[in-house]
Amino acid sequence: MAPKTYTSSLPPTPESSFDPGPPNNSSSSSHTPQDKDCPFCHISSTFPAYDPASPPPASSPFLNSSLTSPQPATFIVLSTPTLIAFLDIMPLSLGHILLCPRRHCGKLTDTTPDEAAELGRYLRVLSAAVVEATGVGDWNVVQNNGAAAAQVVPHMHFHVIPRPELRDKRSERFTATMFGRGQRDELDEEEAGELAERVRRKVAEVMAKSEAGREGRAKL
Amino acid sequence: MAPKTYTSSLPPTPESSFDPGPPNNSSSSSHTPQDKDCPFCHISSTFPAYDPASPPPASSPFLNSSLTSPQPATFIVLSTPTLIAFLDIMPLSLGHILLCPRRHCGKLTDTTPDEAAELGRYLRVLSAAVVEATGVGDWNVVQNNGAAAAQVVPHMHFHVIPRPELRDKRSERFTATMFGRGQRDELDEEEAGELAERVRRKVAEVMAKSEAGREGRAKL
Repeated sequence: MAPKTYTSSLPPTPESSFDPGPPNNSSSSSHTPQDKDCPFCHISSTFPAYDPASPPPASSPFLNSSLTSPQPATFIVLSTPTLIAFLDIMPLSLGHILLCPRRHCGKLTDTTPDEAAELGRYLRVLSAAVVEATGVGDWNVVQNNGAAAAQVVPHMHFHVIPRPELRDKRSERFTATMFGRGQRDELDEEEAGELAERVRRKVAEVMAKSEAGREGRAKL
Repeated sequence: MAPKTYTSSLPPTPESSFDPGPPNNSSSSSHTPQDKDCPFCHISSTFPAYDPASPPPASSPFLNSSLTSPQPATFIVLSTPTLIAFLDIMPLSLGHILLCPRRHCGKLTDTTPDEAAELGRYLRVLSAAVVEATGVGDWNVVQNNGAAAAQVVPHMHFHVIPRPELRDKRSERFTATMFGRGQRDELDEEEAGELAERVRRKVAEVMAKSEAGREGRAKL
């Protein structure tokens, strides 16, 4: 199923002037676009794409975190025609997010070359946005492929995990839970809504800066 | 310092017809291209770029692992104008590799948008190549930013780490050492040379398949 797009059902606004392009334009025909039992496919097919440089307001019905009900609430931080990112529902730290292709891909090697490049491009943008939104300057990027590597949801995803300075005991727990063992905290929904909004705004700012840098270099 | 290129000092061969493009073509003028005390900058400035779809033979002087002497031997698995990848000198498992930009970037957020996209593109290629070269189908991708996140070498790099099925004790040790604590094995140089050669050949095969897939889709 093609993802919905933010442009399809809204009156023209600055946000909706974004052309999301052909859905799944880089997908191979050998892949199932969506898996009906996959929670990340459910998220992908629920939330339309928007221009990350100009995100819709927090009040937009297209960002309503309860749209994935009865599955857990989803706090979107990025939604493009190719990729989607949201807060982890059991975060290892405040600002722990997941980034994945919209299309169902089991492992990193199931992505197309273009999807893989987009993942790399937005890992940088989201990392900068999470640093700005949380004030935590150190973080891990982790991506697990297969059961032996502690992959739990079988739709490939990158974790971006802020690492505040922790005392030794908490630091040990952090490492032990990084690969799926041990206790994680559940997301506080009010805090999550505010955090997701901050991350979306910071994504837009990071992208504006990158564009300014690119134009600056082009003029040289 | 611009990276050397494989084309600059060899007679024309199929490999050397590769145009490596302008060195550091996406680098920002605000960054130092190379840091003289950085071991990964030393590797970058030592090994020239080659066409990853057509790697030089294992006997090539441009892949001589002792070129980084007196620093540890370096087993190159990928070397493009933008990126370089090599075997980790203290691998967590057979096939543990590192991928980084040639240019000195401290954290992921110090890369340019184009470098970040290239990192994503080649993470997919290298993952597939390492799976093929080792026969291990599960793996982790890890990238640490800052001391609190267990970054040791201050030149940003992704780890690609095969995860063979391990008995419980070794699995615990694996997770504990993933973030820089505990014992790792040192690389066996003969084994490393053979493994790096297999990975380089598999990279070329993966890229040929991706291109074939792309042409197939373009014809549709």
